[in-house]
Amino acid sequence: MDFGIWFLIGAALVFFMQAGFAMVETGFTRAKNAGNIIMKNLMDFCIGTFAFSILGAGLMLGEDKLAGLVGLPNLGMWNDFANYDWSSFVFNLVFCATASTIVSGAVAERTKFSSYCIYSLIISLVIYPIEAHWVWGGGWLSQHGFIDFAGSACIHSVGGLCALIGAIMIGARTGKYIRDDAGKVVKVNAIQGHSLTLGALGCFILWFGWYGFNGAAAQSLTELAQIFATTTVAPAFATVACLILTWVKNGKPDVSMCLNASLAGLVAITAGCQAVDYIGAAIIGIVSGILVDVAVEVIDKKFHVDDPVGAIGVHFVNGVFGTIAAGLFATSKSALGVDGPIYALIHGTSFVDGLQVLGWQFLGIFCILLWTGATITLTFFVLKKTVGLRASVEDEIKGMDLSEHGIVAYADFVPQVESIDYTGAIQVIGEVPEAEAVEVKKMDIATEVDVPSSLPQTNLHKVEIICKENMLDALKNAMNSIGVSGMTVTHVMGCGVERGRQEFYRGVAVEVTLLPKVQVEMVVSTVPVEKIVDTAKRTLYTGHIGDGKIFVYDVRNAIKVRTGEEGSAALQDAK
Amino acid sequence: MDFGIWFLIGAALVFFMQAGFAMVETGFTRAKNAGNIIMKNLMDFCIGTFAFSILGAGLMLGEDKLAGLVGLPNLGMWNDFANYDWSSFVFNLVFCATASTIVSGAVAERTKFSSYCIYSLIISLVIYPIEAHWVWGGGWLSQHGFIDFAGSACIHSVGGLCALIGAIMIGARTGKYIRDDAGKVVKVNAIQGHSLTLGALGCFILWFGWYGFNGAAAQSLTELAQIFATTTVAPAFATVACLILTWVKNGKPDVSMCLNASLAGLVAITAGCQAVDYIGAAIIGIVSGILVDVAVEVIDKKFHVDDPVGAIGVHFVNGVFGTIAAGLFATSKSALGVDGPIYALIHGTSFVDGLQVLGWQFLGIFCILLWTGATITLTFFVLKKTVGLRASVEDEIKGMDLSEHGIVAYADFVPQVESIDYTGAIQVIGEVPEAEAVEVKKMDIATEVDVPSSLPQTNLHKVEIICKENMLDALKNAMNSIGVSGMTVTHVMGCGVERGRQEFYRGVAVEVTLLPKVQVEMVVSTVPVEKIVDTAKRTLYTGHIGDGKIFVYDVRNAIKVRTGEEGSAALQDAK
Amino acid sequence: MDFGIWFLIGAALVFFMQAGFAMVETGFTRAKNAGNIIMKNLMDFCIGTFAFSILGAGLMLGEDKLAGLVGLPNLGMWNDFANYDWSSFVFNLVFCATASTIVSGAVAERTKFSSYCIYSLIISLVIYPIEAHWVWGGGWLSQHGFIDFAGSACIHSVGGLCALIGAIMIGARTGKYIRDDAGKVVKVNAIQGHSLTLGALGCFILWFGWYGFNGAAAQSLTELAQIFATTTVAPAFATVACLILTWVKNGKPDVSMCLNASLAGLVAITAGCQAVDYIGAAIIGIVSGILVDVAVEVIDKKFHVDDPVGAIGVHFVNGVFGTIAAGLFATSKSALGVDGPIYALIHGTSFVDGLQVLGWQFLGIFCILLWTGATITLTFFVLKKTVGLRASVEDEIKGMDLSEHGIVAYADFVPQVESIDYTGAIQVIGEVPEAEAVEVKKMDIATEVDVPSSLPQTNLHKVEIICKENMLDALKNAMNSIGVSGMTVTHVMGCGVERGRQEFYRGVAVEVTLLPKVQVEMVVSTVPVEKIVDTAKRTLYTGHIGDGKIFVYDVRNAIKVRTGEEGSAALQDAK
Repeated sequence: MDFGIWFLIGAALVFFMQAGFAMVETGFTRAKNAGNIIMKNLMDFCIGTFAFSILGAGLMLGEDKLAGLVGLPNLGMWNDFANYDWSSFVFNLVFCATASTIVSGAVAERTKFSSYCIYSLIISLVIYPIEAHWVWGGGWLSQHGFIDFAGSACIHSVGGLCALIGAIMIGARTGKYIRDDAGKVVKVNAIQGHSLTLGALGCFILWFGWYGFNGAAAQSLTELAQIFATTTVAPAFATVACLILTWVKNGKPDVSMCLNASLAGLVAITAGCQAVDYIGAAIIGIVSGILVDVAVEVIDKKFHVDDPVGAIGVHFVNGVFGTIAAGLFATSKSALGVDGPIYALIHGTSFVDGLQVLGWQFLGIFCILLWTGATITLTFFVLKKTVGLRASVEDEIKGMDLSEHGIVAYADFVPQVESIDYTGAIQVIGEVPEAEAVEVKKMDIATEVDVPSSLPQTNLHKVEIICKENMLDALKNAMNSIGVSGMTVTHVMGCGVERGRQEFYRGVAVEVTLLPKVQVEMVVSTVPVEKIVDTAKRTLYTGHIGDGKIFVYDVRNAIKVRTGEEGSAALQDAK
Repeated sequence: MDFGIWFLIGAALVFFMQAGFAMVETGFTRAKNAGNIIMKNLMDFCIGTFAFSILGAGLMLGEDKLAGLVGLPNLGMWNDFANYDWSSFVFNLVFCATASTIVSGAVAERTKFSSYCIYSLIISLVIYPIEAHWVWGGGWLSQHGFIDFAGSACIHSVGGLCALIGAIMIGARTGKYIRDDAGKVVKVNAIQGHSLTLGALGCFILWFGWYGFNGAAAQSLTELAQIFATTTVAPAFATVACLILTWVKNGKPDVSMCLNASLAGLVAITAGCQAVDYIGAAIIGIVSGILVDVAVEVIDKKFHVDDPVGAIGVHFVNGVFGTIAAGLFATSKSALGVDGPIYALIHGTSFVDGLQVLGWQFLGIFCILLWTGATITLTFFVLKKTVGLRASVEDEIKGMDLSEHGIVAYADFVPQVESIDYTGAIQVIGEVPEAEAVEVKKMDIATEVDVPSSLPQTNLHKVEIICKENMLDALKNAMNSIGVSGMTVTHVMGCGVERGRQEFYRGVAVEVTLLPKVQVEMVVSTVPVEKIVDTAKRTLYTGHIGDGKIFVYDVRNAIKVRTGEEGSAALQDAK
Repeated sequence: MDFGIWFLIGAALVFFMQAGFAMVETGFTRAKNAGNIIMKNLMDFCIGTFAFSILGAGLMLGEDKLAGLVGLPNLGMWNDFANYDWSSFVFNLVFCATASTIVSGAVAERTKFSSYCIYSLIISLVIYPIEAHWVWGGGWLSQHGFIDFAGSACIHSVGGLCALIGAIMIGARTGKYIRDDAGKVVKVNAIQGHSLTLGALGCFILWFGWYGFNGAAAQSLTELAQIFATTTVAPAFATVACLILTWVKNGKPDVSMCLNASLAGLVAITAGCQAVDYIGAAIIGIVSGILVDVAVEVIDKKFHVDDPVGAIGVHFVNGVFGTIAAGLFATSKSALGVDGPIYALIHGTSFVDGLQVLGWQFLGIFCILLWTGATITLTFFVLKKTVGLRASVEDEIKGMDLSEHGIVAYADFVPQVESIDYTGAIQVIGEVPEAEAVEVKKMDIATEVDVPSSLPQTNLHKVEIICKENMLDALKNAMNSIGVSGMTVTHVMGCGVERGRQEFYRGVAVEVTLLPKVQVEMVVSTVPVEKIVDTAKRTLYTGHIGDGKIFVYDVRNAIKVRTGEEGSAALQDAK
């Protein structure tokens, strides 16, 4: 009876994990997409509730007349409220929403919102319920002693595989991988998240909620306490392992990777939290902490799959590992009643019996991944061909918050200028809208700049360039290439002929008339002003309104503080 | 016995909802008021505990000798610690604090802190305890089967009505509604919140806490599971309904409104969470998700009541709706033992008996609102006439954090420049303090600017204006009106003759010497510099120190990137 | 049995307090150290789990064969999983991590990460387990009726004393205290936190978790309800007391201090939460709310111990006070079965018996502090002599996030310029790296600035200085001293010859090429440009690359808006 209450408290804790996912995913991505990511998390739960109500719960929990493959939906939820098992429904619903929400982080910052909503519907409607039926709904895997107490396999590896396939099919964020003309990646850029503190808060919330996630289904107080112990030691040891690894490898302990390691440890212990002992949990933790770091790097730097928050490394890699590890380290408390092979080796029980446990783990995870992989690939394929999976590059650069929802998540703070080279991407933005087009004067790059003769010539000038933020990196590189290395960059707001957008904030029209721009200033002497102006024009030109303006000023003097040099000499680089 | 523990865990969850309210309210308002709002939330609980201890608990829970109207306070809490019912006390206290804290969001950003503290005292001392006694303290409504299991009526509609009356009596935030000379609203401005992520986190926390809010008083495990189910489906369906509605209506799905819809669904299901079935809860959810969007817009755009966070639409409108809906959809599990009218229609039971259920719902909510409306109006009226309800416009523009508490919530980030037209408001700031007054030279607007003759004239000039942030919008409009449309705006810090304020941070004096300013730059050619200077002077002049400075520079050349045009031609707008 | 589940739920709530600590500590410190502080909190738990597993739990909970002084570790955890008391282990582990994490806030923003990790290991390995054994592990204090139900003494005063000793031995943050040549503090600077909202969220989370912290070990429902009541009234009344005190004292209610007061009330009630009645709890709360404010100010302004988040005032001062107060206000429910002296006075029972209760409280807290003080001093002393306790001043100014972890916590926001005078500190940064050194031209300060003669002289010039952020305050003061009071400061990013650092974000190399700088602009007339340039050179010179550049421009005109004055007259200060 009291375990019945705890079961529901556990469900509430698992619900709270949605807040954790939302914070982790938004914290580790850019501010311009913060609202979009949160909206996806919210919809994973809300659309998921709809999908699970109308079909999912039936497929997962309904009576099974098909050889353990799928449950038969009935109408009990709708016409027999008093007798329907609502505890089980609520509990399984919050787990289902967890599987679904894992994906949003991996495909963040470039996936179309409409298309994401449909994905979210499909996974909760069909994909998750059927494989979860096999494990938790009385299906065939549960009948054969497959160990997956709280879902390393049926939640995390499933969500993680969807994340992997989604990230591949949608493609990397613009500017993440720089390719040469042959398409080979020549540079991998790091795109930093916008709030490490919210990301960390999310991890703490997830860890807290995980005590409900792993513990809710405990059958006795002893079992619950053991689950709390394994669920504590694995993430703790994973984090320490990752601390040491990144410290040794990079020379500095990596904060965001250690937070990932905590989650990796939790994911990995989830399958076996009830079946392994403290040593087993500690080893699983240590391995997962190393695994997640290696996986995240390999996925990014080797396979060039762009996963902004590390969802694939955390949930897919460690979900699979955790499922196997549960078999390796299982004690005889597990479903088959025999020790797993490693546990058997240590304690001198039957290694061969142990292999049987392991065998079912392999078969189980294989079938789960096969089902998930096939159905999610089909889902994303159909979406790609119909609604379209990916936002336009223009929308992506602008940020999904503005383009998909017409909002700015942090209206009261000055945004930092992005330092991503969008050069290639900008060119493809399409034509200037007819209405905005004006006759463009042919750019005679070779022409001398026509300086009004009324001003005397000095040898020091300031060139001030006001342009779009996303051109900064290209401009910087172009200026460096002609020998201008010293410049200052300021985030300004431009208010010009470029028309502001009309958006709605809570139903009220918002006219955005101040557009974010950068102002780049350089004082030059030996590099001719004409060369700078020409290079800037060539670099910034796209033919769109808002390409920018260049102003030239006279400078009376320049002094370098360190050397005391003045005039032209003050502008030379240290050798 | 175990339900006794769950009852207290539920109370702790309801306490945690204070964090949710704090995050929602601060996230959906501006950064310059973030600390003030949090302080109000904190005080709602702390002052509320004081008020509920010394009187409120007695009025609500004391023995009733007055026809079910009010409880008789006794001293048990103070002199009979061992036998006092502390479970009930703590539980009812956290609910009381919830009612009280609803108001802070609706009156945010312009209410005097002292006056808010007194309001907070009164509601927890008298207003809430008496009406809650009727419903939950054994009073007259509870004796007649009024359905309000967890407080759509006695918490949310009460807090929501106080929010509505408070927002009306305090008036809108400066700059929210632009009125013509006749006082008619000609424009409704959107004032965006400062952190969508914190706002969203707050919503997730509230939803999580709501499982305690609605579930704590459950009497059996079956009932608890049913409550968890209805408390899940209503907000989920509300959110999906709002998603679709805003998508269709505005062309883009509205994030902050969907978050409001989740809360609306929770508020609406609160009264009937134990009395309705899954279908009833789903319908209540869908309606509430639509209702909140319509209500927020109508309240803002039609009635011009300024509610920064949507508290009236969420708590008042859906609190009332939820109370009625509980009557409409009640199953026979409800207090009167008969089905509500709609449920009766569907299931073929007595519609007339159902109307009886509904009748008590109407009577109950009417009496609760009457009592609350009368007492809160009196409270705010007396406050307005004595302490004053509203902060000065100067304090409001500066931000309540600085003016009321001498702090800056985000000291390490550069604040974005506000784009609100404060023109009318600034004029009324009162006189320059005697000490700062200097003899003001008569502004001879017609006079030509006296340019030092030593410099040759060019036809390109840069005019740089440094002024207060709150004048930006007025300046922008003035410049547009004389044909200057291109300008760049930078947030700078001014350090000048204007004296910094002395504030205290944790007891240590802080001298604020760098004051936020904006620097507006425009390069002009055809529009005469004198005209710009004159217009800027006229627009920015208030006679206060800090009105600003204007600088004029020569520009050697200007180039427009898109067209390659130079000099004067580069400054012309696209046609 | 059901209390067994609640015991574990309580442990989960205490785990969640780690999130609260992380948010409080990061919120009340600067953005440039946000990630470092969170990492320390995370490691307190993870390293703590390691330390407590391998030794701590044994010392604390093992069988005691040494006169109640220390437990004897055994291997049960590792080789007898099925029979080990995991409930007790998990519960005591999360408490241990709480003690450890208190320190990170007090030593924040300047402590070496490596050294902090070792401290964290030692406290969980030995220091905490032994004194906690005395109180909760069946040791000598528990045998004599020492009252410390949930740890005012053995958690908070211990963590708080470590914080105090750590803060003293590590020394204050650079720029916190300005000293004259004799070393006397002549000015105490306030260094504001970067996110009041996250700090407040942390406080709410802590308060929420505290219901588990204080309540988990309750033995009956009545006791649990009483604990919930005392745990509510104490912080609530503390907060109200602090509200009134700061309002009266500083003229404005202090937000961050009121949040500290809530925590102080919670700390103070922790020892006696089960032993005192409602009046006792209320009085303890009120005193703690006053005490924390006085303590924080005295520690900072009188003793010049730099505790960024107030951990010493909250945990040490109120931990000790709470321990004593538990003795003073104890009812006969306490371990010795007699009333505390004040409770005895009020209720007419034996005052002398009460003194006995109080006596044990004094002896207990004395011994606990003695043990803690001795061992932690030794720990920090050895660390100081070996690894080093303190980060270099250069690293501190740069921020611990960049220097220790190579990250920026808020990559998408423009950071505000710090206004701390680092003058003294900068000088000691050490030599320019060999590779970067260039021959420095002797600065002939007296030399006239050599103005190119080609430009006509005007009497208005703009001097624009681009320099490192940490020189701003010194530059401002220097300019004021020569009569330049009006200037505007802009946060810009410099991209010059100074080489960017190579850091790693999630394993991917990040080249930081845009370095934060400030641009200071002043338009001058009567103060000669040469004097400004000379003064700026003298102030900014350190001989390092990146000392900055100075540019001089002509200005055609300047207009002061308020007076309409032009040219030179526009630049004069108001008298």
